[in-house]
Amino acid sequence: MRKIGVLGGMGPEATIYFMQQVVDAVEARDDADHIPLLVDNNTQVPSRIKAILEGGGADPAPVLVQMAKGLVAAGAEALVMPCNTAHYYAGQVAQATDAPFLNMVDMASAEAARIAPGGKVGLLGSPALQQVGVFEDALSRVGVSPVYAREQSRALAAIRSIKAQGPSEFAAHSLSDICAQMVADGADVICICCTEFSLLSRQIASSVQIYDAMQLLVSATVTFSRGEEQVVGAA
Amino acid sequence: MRKIGVLGGMGPEATIYFMQQVVDAVEARDDADHIPLLVDNNTQVPSRIKAILEGGGADPAPVLVQMAKGLVAAGAEALVMPCNTAHYYAGQVAQATDAPFLNMVDMASAEAARIAPGGKVGLLGSPALQQVGVFEDALSRVGVSPVYAREQSRALAAIRSIKAQGPSEFAAHSLSDICAQMVADGADVICICCTEFSLLSRQIASSVQIYDAMQLLVSATVTFSRGEEQVVGAA
Repeated sequence: MRKIGVLGGMGPEATIYFMQQVVDAVEARDDADHIPLLVDNNTQVPSRIKAILEGGGADPAPVLVQMAKGLVAAGAEALVMPCNTAHYYAGQVAQATDAPFLNMVDMASAEAARIAPGGKVGLLGSPALQQVGVFEDALSRVGVSPVYAREQSRALAAIRSIKAQGPSEFAAHSLSDICAQMVADGADVICICCTEFSLLSRQIASSVQIYDAMQLLVSATVTFSRGEEQVVGAA
Repeated sequence: MRKIGVLGGMGPEATIYFMQQVVDAVEARDDADHIPLLVDNNTQVPSRIKAILEGGGADPAPVLVQMAKGLVAAGAEALVMPCNTAHYYAGQVAQATDAPFLNMVDMASAEAARIAPGGKVGLLGSPALQQVGVFEDALSRVGVSPVYAREQSRALAAIRSIKAQGPSEFAAHSLSDICAQMVADGADVICICCTEFSLLSRQIASSVQIYDAMQLLVSATVTFSRGEEQVVGAA
């Protein structure tokens, strides 16, 4: 099995959840059946929200590039980054090394097109996604349009509360409200595209199909490590 | 905060649990308040149980030494290994680099001496601990005697079931029975010293005080990362 490098710590709890999902995805009889991961759970990556939304913060890109190089130097054969917002820097991360970068935004976009061809996907994520258009190119390539939350401040409040206090029922309700609004605005399907929200994926209610970008990354990680097939989003 | 290198994957679920405990130990307002960890969740370390108990398996030591070197080369400023049995190789790991190795067995032994000075500690862990005396020197230095499970095969069955199916009520009952037997054999305190059993620490019942070696390692990790004080077991 190939060792997968994880650019983590954004936030640390989401990284741990990603790792647990990778463990859960494997039918194991002993440790050796599990996927080997090399995880830089770097809690000191400059805030993506501060850099993108508020301006003036330190640039996360050079830190992410260094993490990618360090993971590959230490033996990672592919890279993943379980943070949707950080995919704003995906191009720089992918170019930092020769190892394939399994792009979660590309996977999430392909899944939207599979479920709702030519339709609209409600992006349940950080306001930063809209601000800098993290999904725009990938969705446009597969012929799907994005729908964003009207009340972006509520999504941001949910992220901050999960990062500070962990997942809560309060945050889940708030996110379900946002889903209802995005469906009213035409979303045919909802994509959970903030790994903090992935922690609540089972508690978020929606009247249309809902899927979690992180789960796609989990599957791709297992598949790539085992060398079984071509992974969508490997660049 | 200093980045701590984790020799992990023994098993992967115990490593994830360790990481989660480190997150939970920190009062955080944002990602940056959390402890940065560099985790080699290496599921391909040769089986410690096979090497120690059954003989003939590959030697885990050279792999652990390479992991230690790799983590330090990638920026870890101290090393931890959330697997009690693997501490059989602690000397080789500690000598592999110049970074301090925070020794969980030394911490667990010091805690036994604090709770039951001059007494006996029941070691709830892998049969491999007794087979090669992983705790013998450390306990002897602090004047505490070990008590082992009479039915070592039950402990081994519990480890194998947790590694294969995850923590279960069945395993917790089995471990509680072992605790009762060790108390009957004179244990003044019980030390959970298998990180697979740590996953069940709240479900294991005992008539004497019970503590988890992994929790001591979690505290030491947070303390060392923050540079706050001298850590017992840092060598």
